[in-house]
Amino acid sequence: MKKLKFGACLPPFGSCADRYCLSGYGTNRTVPEMIALASKVKELKGIELVGNWHVNEKNFDEISVCLKNAGLAVSMMVPDLWTQAKWGKGSFTSKDASIRRAAADEVKKSMDMAARVGCDKVDVWLGQDGYDYAFQADYLEAWEQIIEGVRQCADHRKDVKICVEYKQKEPRTHIFTNNAPRTVLLVDTIGRDNVGILIDSGHSSAAQENPAEAVAMVNSGGRKRLFYIHINDNYGDWDDDMMFGSVHTIEALEMLYWLDRTGYDDYYTLDIFPYRENGLRAVEESIAWVNGLRGLLEKMGLDRIAEVIRKGDATESSRLLREAICK
Amino acid sequence: MKKLKFGACLPPFGSCADRYCLSGYGTNRTVPEMIALASKVKELKGIELVGNWHVNEKNFDEISVCLKNAGLAVSMMVPDLWTQAKWGKGSFTSKDASIRRAAADEVKKSMDMAARVGCDKVDVWLGQDGYDYAFQADYLEAWEQIIEGVRQCADHRKDVKICVEYKQKEPRTHIFTNNAPRTVLLVDTIGRDNVGILIDSGHSSAAQENPAEAVAMVNSGGRKRLFYIHINDNYGDWDDDMMFGSVHTIEALEMLYWLDRTGYDDYYTLDIFPYRENGLRAVEESIAWVNGLRGLLEKMGLDRIAEVIRKGDATESSRLLREAICK
Amino acid sequence: MKKLKFGACLPPFGSCADRYCLSGYGTNRTVPEMIALASKVKELKGIELVGNWHVNEKNFDEISVCLKNAGLAVSMMVPDLWTQAKWGKGSFTSKDASIRRAAADEVKKSMDMAARVGCDKVDVWLGQDGYDYAFQADYLEAWEQIIEGVRQCADHRKDVKICVEYKQKEPRTHIFTNNAPRTVLLVDTIGRDNVGILIDSGHSSAAQENPAEAVAMVNSGGRKRLFYIHINDNYGDWDDDMMFGSVHTIEALEMLYWLDRTGYDDYYTLDIFPYRENGLRAVEESIAWVNGLRGLLEKMGLDRIAEVIRKGDATESSRLLREAICK
Amino acid sequence: MKKLKFGACLPPFGSCADRYCLSGYGTNRTVPEMIALASKVKELKGIELVGNWHVNEKNFDEISVCLKNAGLAVSMMVPDLWTQAKWGKGSFTSKDASIRRAAADEVKKSMDMAARVGCDKVDVWLGQDGYDYAFQADYLEAWEQIIEGVRQCADHRKDVKICVEYKQKEPRTHIFTNNAPRTVLLVDTIGRDNVGILIDSGHSSAAQENPAEAVAMVNSGGRKRLFYIHINDNYGDWDDDMMFGSVHTIEALEMLYWLDRTGYDDYYTLDIFPYRENGLRAVEESIAWVNGLRGLLEKMGLDRIAEVIRKGDATESSRLLREAICK
Repeated sequence: MKKLKFGACLPPFGSCADRYCLSGYGTNRTVPEMIALASKVKELKGIELVGNWHVNEKNFDEISVCLKNAGLAVSMMVPDLWTQAKWGKGSFTSKDASIRRAAADEVKKSMDMAARVGCDKVDVWLGQDGYDYAFQADYLEAWEQIIEGVRQCADHRKDVKICVEYKQKEPRTHIFTNNAPRTVLLVDTIGRDNVGILIDSGHSSAAQENPAEAVAMVNSGGRKRLFYIHINDNYGDWDDDMMFGSVHTIEALEMLYWLDRTGYDDYYTLDIFPYRENGLRAVEESIAWVNGLRGLLEKMGLDRIAEVIRKGDATESSRLLREAICK
Repeated sequence: MKKLKFGACLPPFGSCADRYCLSGYGTNRTVPEMIALASKVKELKGIELVGNWHVNEKNFDEISVCLKNAGLAVSMMVPDLWTQAKWGKGSFTSKDASIRRAAADEVKKSMDMAARVGCDKVDVWLGQDGYDYAFQADYLEAWEQIIEGVRQCADHRKDVKICVEYKQKEPRTHIFTNNAPRTVLLVDTIGRDNVGILIDSGHSSAAQENPAEAVAMVNSGGRKRLFYIHINDNYGDWDDDMMFGSVHTIEALEMLYWLDRTGYDDYYTLDIFPYRENGLRAVEESIAWVNGLRGLLEKMGLDRIAEVIRKGDATESSRLLREAICK
Repeated sequence: MKKLKFGACLPPFGSCADRYCLSGYGTNRTVPEMIALASKVKELKGIELVGNWHVNEKNFDEISVCLKNAGLAVSMMVPDLWTQAKWGKGSFTSKDASIRRAAADEVKKSMDMAARVGCDKVDVWLGQDGYDYAFQADYLEAWEQIIEGVRQCADHRKDVKICVEYKQKEPRTHIFTNNAPRTVLLVDTIGRDNVGILIDSGHSSAAQENPAEAVAMVNSGGRKRLFYIHINDNYGDWDDDMMFGSVHTIEALEMLYWLDRTGYDDYYTLDIFPYRENGLRAVEESIAWVNGLRGLLEKMGLDRIAEVIRKGDATESSRLLREAICK
Repeated sequence: MKKLKFGACLPPFGSCADRYCLSGYGTNRTVPEMIALASKVKELKGIELVGNWHVNEKNFDEISVCLKNAGLAVSMMVPDLWTQAKWGKGSFTSKDASIRRAAADEVKKSMDMAARVGCDKVDVWLGQDGYDYAFQADYLEAWEQIIEGVRQCADHRKDVKICVEYKQKEPRTHIFTNNAPRTVLLVDTIGRDNVGILIDSGHSSAAQENPAEAVAMVNSGGRKRLFYIHINDNYGDWDDDMMFGSVHTIEALEMLYWLDRTGYDDYYTLDIFPYRENGLRAVEESIAWVNGLRGLLEKMGLDRIAEVIRKGDATESSRLLREAICK
């Protein structure tokens, strides 16, 4: 199996905060400091930059220089559609037309920034677009607004890909783009070559999905819509953003297999929030898990795996796994 | 608001069993006895018949006569794709081609039976088509098999509608057709006018969906694919098949609203398993909840509801609900 | 039924933040401003003060004056065991003995402050005491540390009650004091008259409990250990801190019934996080729900409820509820 | 690490049924046939017998002979408190006093049978004792009835241990004895030396517990109340009764560690329902997983594990696990 290309989001290199400890559990660092720290992770090739949090028109050049010096690419630009109060009641689905326009502008701006820094992707995560209470949302109107909003951004420029990232809940209790099939439906409807899907393995687990199956779904019927992945782990009911492989170990292994099987060929990006851990070590551990689990796949043998799946006999699947893990 | 047409599945009129008490908690009754009992529910217009459990080629005429005498229509024919061991490892997605053919034959036979008894729908619930363990399923192959299987049944005759019913789990731990968007995707891909969706409100709740949103989804983009509904309730993590409205009361209310808003115009069919209750009274209670909740919608006022949704202010939604319920 | 005494936590009167929007979705206000706003809620009698967030030795006198002017009592003092990075890996269960001592000091300081302001309770919520990963915690040692820590605080002064608040997860993925029976076990073991339990209805729902049953449990066997309650709501898998009654409406109603039945006689305190709502209105709505639901209990009739429970026939329970709600 | 003693329930050796396929997915076998098949599993030392399903006063001698011939001990007798309609609304908590007496008689009869066959334990699983709907149960009365019922059985004879098995739900949507701390509370209150706890690892996972922590809890404060364990696995929200280790692999490993650490020294009994698998192979696989995972514990080193737990640094725990699994 070929060597992978790893990326990371920046929170592990700064201080992860939650609603109780708003100042964060770790050491606060400037963006250049976080980039410098990230560069110490040997296998890391790229990092993600979030608008407002990390990058804006003023510091763009400074950050670009930092990255160059650190030998890190930008694997993904993330337009800010969720870090400020103005997005609280939605970006593309805001009841306020000026906010909807601002959301499109933000995505387009991110696309332009991405292109300037040699990155061909933006992560459109509509985390604030949803609802919390009954009789609060117009589901049909919101859906049309998302289609229209993403489509107009896609048409802004063809050389940058829009990766729609789904999540069941948080920060809203219900997010419209909440699982893999719904996002496939969205992307099918939008019908643009530069619009695809970002699967976050933890979001998939917390949406009651099996990430391996989600990977397959996004590639079903000849679609080649898996543009990017985030990897992390959780306990199945919330986006705990833990080290990859720590909980859904077997499901992580199966996802890695299906990523290979469906020809995924881009970054494996860590989106973890190691609130109480040394972030650098948490990223390194996660990368080591990916490599270690792929080693298990090799031990199992890709042909043997395919054969076991063809048979569909659970005791044989179990035995194959068990012998790789325990021997 | 107009008067609804109610249907029911037969288990409440017999004895509901589970894996611990296989002989059932209630009184065992023959199918004619169950039909006779069902006829005592004043508002009931139709019942569902499940292949193997209730109807087959031998007793078909006898059952037809019973129904006529009872003044009950068949609201739905349910092909047996899940009551016998032979379907245990899948119907349309069996690894065994002869089982796949048998599944298609079963659906076609049900379509023919439906037509003979004046019913225009069959419920294709692929409950055995899924997987239980990692490295057991070929997700892409299974998906193609479902598409192909349902499509060939759809082409068997155009005058009977196929209603694909989704469910997250049980009897398999993972069912392929597991939620609303995935089933929309399936129906879109199959591309036949007589293939649509059956939303079971409890399956929707247990798939971490808001049933109101699922109803909207199935009608999004001008699709008119909600062919039928099952109603019941549960605690959100399993298909408890409880009386309608008993747990997700507010969500039930919102679903009833969206059914009206999107023009649903067919049976409201109770699919409940009142293991320990008097089944007749459980059905009557559920119907009374539907009518009672619709009374609340009238009290809230359809125009006022639409206005509140337009605003999207949760405290106003809350007040509208609260005043209808508590005053 | 007698009139209730309502309390509230302060977040609804300021700006609720989460890990994405750290500056909060609403209007930032000083503590005196929050108190002034709280005083506008007609039925509010008391508020809670959290150490570090709201109150410390420096501003204590100023805040006391504010409260007096606003006509609000302190219903609860909350020692800070969770708002600063130093508590991130535990307070009473920290591996660091100096942190454990600091935790006890913090609770004692809060007890003293409480007494000075005429409040007889502190809320010991051990939200940071837990673990996130396998092979990270020594469950037996941690349990002993909690017992010892809480006991020594209880012995600090008998005139202030310690209310142990439980929660399944957040901020840790696993919190040691995670549900009602475990906390009863803790309190039984500690064996001090001034140590009891705070049930947060939303924590109970998110711990897969029925809050009504939790209320009963805490009073089982003649225990009178329910010292205080927090009320709010959520979707059952996370502490969404929504307006009371908005989701688990029926369960909320049953909890209110059991609070009465077991003689609960203290504050009904709103612990909600109305991130995107007008906080004042969200508090008022929640209070109106409590009063409205209690109105339904009266409509149902306390004697009739007791009779229905005695029979245990679900269709009768359903009918009683339905007729109160829908008629 | 010492060699373990394995037991099994009988369903894997017969045909596992569910509510859809009531005749079962496998081959129906008589009890003697099931025992004969069980005897083919090399490491199996004991099996469990369920009243009514497997054993009664009439066939007791025949079954005893079968077991002797097969070289299998009875690891556990399970009184029938849940296989017949008469228990549907509760055994010890039935509203009907004659049913409550029958339940106690059933347990005592099982205790006597156990003693006759050289087994010192009965499994009191109160799966039918709970409730399904709001306003249906009197939580305080039910709790007293359970205490009284179990206590009188305990006093029937001291030489047979009562192992109370807890479960969150199924067959009731809410079971009173639902999790580890609640069962510890029960056992503490009953206060008899021959009353302890049976932890079913899958019930623990499905009750949102970490089974390792549950094992510790039951042994907290010097209690030695873990009398017996059932092992199996599931997806965390239902008792799927899958092969051990197949889903919660890491948590299974940690539970095995804590069983050792707290000195558990009795059967490791498989309570699996391999509906669609070859039952014999499913049992063998599960045993092989237990042995394989314990091999990993040895590879990790018990001293090194203890040291890592003492530090509580998640990245070190992760590394230790990862190196054992992936190298």
